[in-house]
Amino acid sequence: MQAQLIALDWGTTSLRAYKLAAGGQVLEQRSLSSGIMQLPGVPRMIAGRMCADGFELAFDEACGDWLDAQPELAVIACGMVGSAQGWAEAAYCETPANVANLGRSLNTLRSLRGVDVHIVPGVIQRSRLPNVMRGEETQVLGVLQGLPAGAGDNLLIGLPGSHSKWVEVADGCIRHFDTFMTGEVFAVLSEHSILGRTQQRGAPFAGRAFDRGVQVALSSEGEIGPLSTLFSARSLGLTGELSAAEQTDYLSGLLIGHELAALASVQRHRRHSEHLPSIVLIGNAQLCARYSRALAACGFTQVSLAEQATERGLWQLAEAAGLLG
Amino acid sequence: MQAQLIALDWGTTSLRAYKLAAGGQVLEQRSLSSGIMQLPGVPRMIAGRMCADGFELAFDEACGDWLDAQPELAVIACGMVGSAQGWAEAAYCETPANVANLGRSLNTLRSLRGVDVHIVPGVIQRSRLPNVMRGEETQVLGVLQGLPAGAGDNLLIGLPGSHSKWVEVADGCIRHFDTFMTGEVFAVLSEHSILGRTQQRGAPFAGRAFDRGVQVALSSEGEIGPLSTLFSARSLGLTGELSAAEQTDYLSGLLIGHELAALASVQRHRRHSEHLPSIVLIGNAQLCARYSRALAACGFTQVSLAEQATERGLWQLAEAAGLLG
Repeated sequence: MQAQLIALDWGTTSLRAYKLAAGGQVLEQRSLSSGIMQLPGVPRMIAGRMCADGFELAFDEACGDWLDAQPELAVIACGMVGSAQGWAEAAYCETPANVANLGRSLNTLRSLRGVDVHIVPGVIQRSRLPNVMRGEETQVLGVLQGLPAGAGDNLLIGLPGSHSKWVEVADGCIRHFDTFMTGEVFAVLSEHSILGRTQQRGAPFAGRAFDRGVQVALSSEGEIGPLSTLFSARSLGLTGELSAAEQTDYLSGLLIGHELAALASVQRHRRHSEHLPSIVLIGNAQLCARYSRALAACGFTQVSLAEQATERGLWQLAEAAGLLG
Repeated sequence: MQAQLIALDWGTTSLRAYKLAAGGQVLEQRSLSSGIMQLPGVPRMIAGRMCADGFELAFDEACGDWLDAQPELAVIACGMVGSAQGWAEAAYCETPANVANLGRSLNTLRSLRGVDVHIVPGVIQRSRLPNVMRGEETQVLGVLQGLPAGAGDNLLIGLPGSHSKWVEVADGCIRHFDTFMTGEVFAVLSEHSILGRTQQRGAPFAGRAFDRGVQVALSSEGEIGPLSTLFSARSLGLTGELSAAEQTDYLSGLLIGHELAALASVQRHRRHSEHLPSIVLIGNAQLCARYSRALAACGFTQVSLAEQATERGLWQLAEAAGLLG
């Protein structure tokens, strides 16, 4: 089957490359660690010239052989590669954002080998506290494409990660989204705060401790907020109620529980309804499993996982941009 | 004037020593950096013997000359020196705790020079999410001692710090307290998260940015909680609404604002009243100034600062323990 598109998901710490055929079918895929903050540094020959540019080197590693075989293949890329620290900045598009207006806003650069790379812009929401995303917009659009018309009204798309995003959609558009820094807060507290000193890392997943953390966040004791309940990850250890092997997952459950309790409250308020929306999760399987578990505890009864969201989104954007000839 | 007591406030990163006369009057005081996590390490002679013990060395530096001059002086110490990582562990006393029962629970060790050191226990509250303090109990008792009878009922004592404590008191007792890890969360986010990357440190205090952070926490946007609003310290920078020099104090105001909004809500709930208690703050002057500013914004109309709380508390505890002869 003939390839039609090279699609790159190029983030801060990783670079995933897909070779796609008609309809977005994945012919081949690769995963590299050449995110924009850890680009290769050893110069080598590209297209007959010595090159030391990290972006060019990573691009060549990711898909140089595919382009050697089919030099006319279109190339599209999403993620932090389009940030101010990326290969070429693609200015944010404002909400509401859909495939059509993002597809019209790609930023194109000419690579050393003469191939054009089309970069997807991020999305900005200019609310009183502004919100931004880069990469997640492509995944959300990839999911939306597969939904029946009108399905978005009662839907919330969740993208757990260092900075998790919760995206409200309607009529194929990203309408509104919230960001929670839960993943990064968990990481810095575990690595650099007093809470990490008594954590035993690398233990198997302690499901009961995770659930307990979620329950604390949802309980009347949790109403005082995470800045206070955090301390229980230490004090329950001091009183012997939480072992060192349980403290990491307790903290994880506690923080995710606070995130989801706040999310449920905000959603009920915005929708003027006690009824919570259906959830579609996109992301790392282990992290999505944690969120699924906590979502159920928080009263989100319908949760499903999206697959191939990134590849599908990139394919749709390339089609909307007229890159597929 | 004759000294009657050596009082030590011995925490994780600092050691303060007071020489006190009748009535707790301060004759002399010293501040050393020999907290229990940074004890001196160079062996030397103490009381005719070579000594390499960090606690003995720090103790000798802090008040060896005072004891040389008056070997019969009583010595009392509070703070992390009584923790499991301290010189000698003084088991927590349970709430309600007052001068009388803490004074009866000192743990005594015999130092190398033959002088007894009496260590004040911390206080534990065995609520569903337990809370502990070490050092703060002494400061709170020092403040309570100076209050007229019955003054505690409408009073909340605040001890801002890495882990701030808010202490409810009645009849000279510590009845209930809450901990917020606000200070440590601020520090680890500023030093180790993406928020720190765009912060310009060392700028003069940006009062307007601090106040703006407090207001965001108190606003309807703040109801989504700190795990989400945190991201605005970055996104307001991306949109040019917050300069690099303002981001640190904005984040500080945001976190303190979330702490105090939660505190106000919990206090109203517990007291079954819209009326907020009077506040007495104990601690570092600059940090207390930030909290005073934010407390006013949160509707706490009566805020005062306590002075010499530690020395007074240690004096009272020594008296209750019968150490003053």
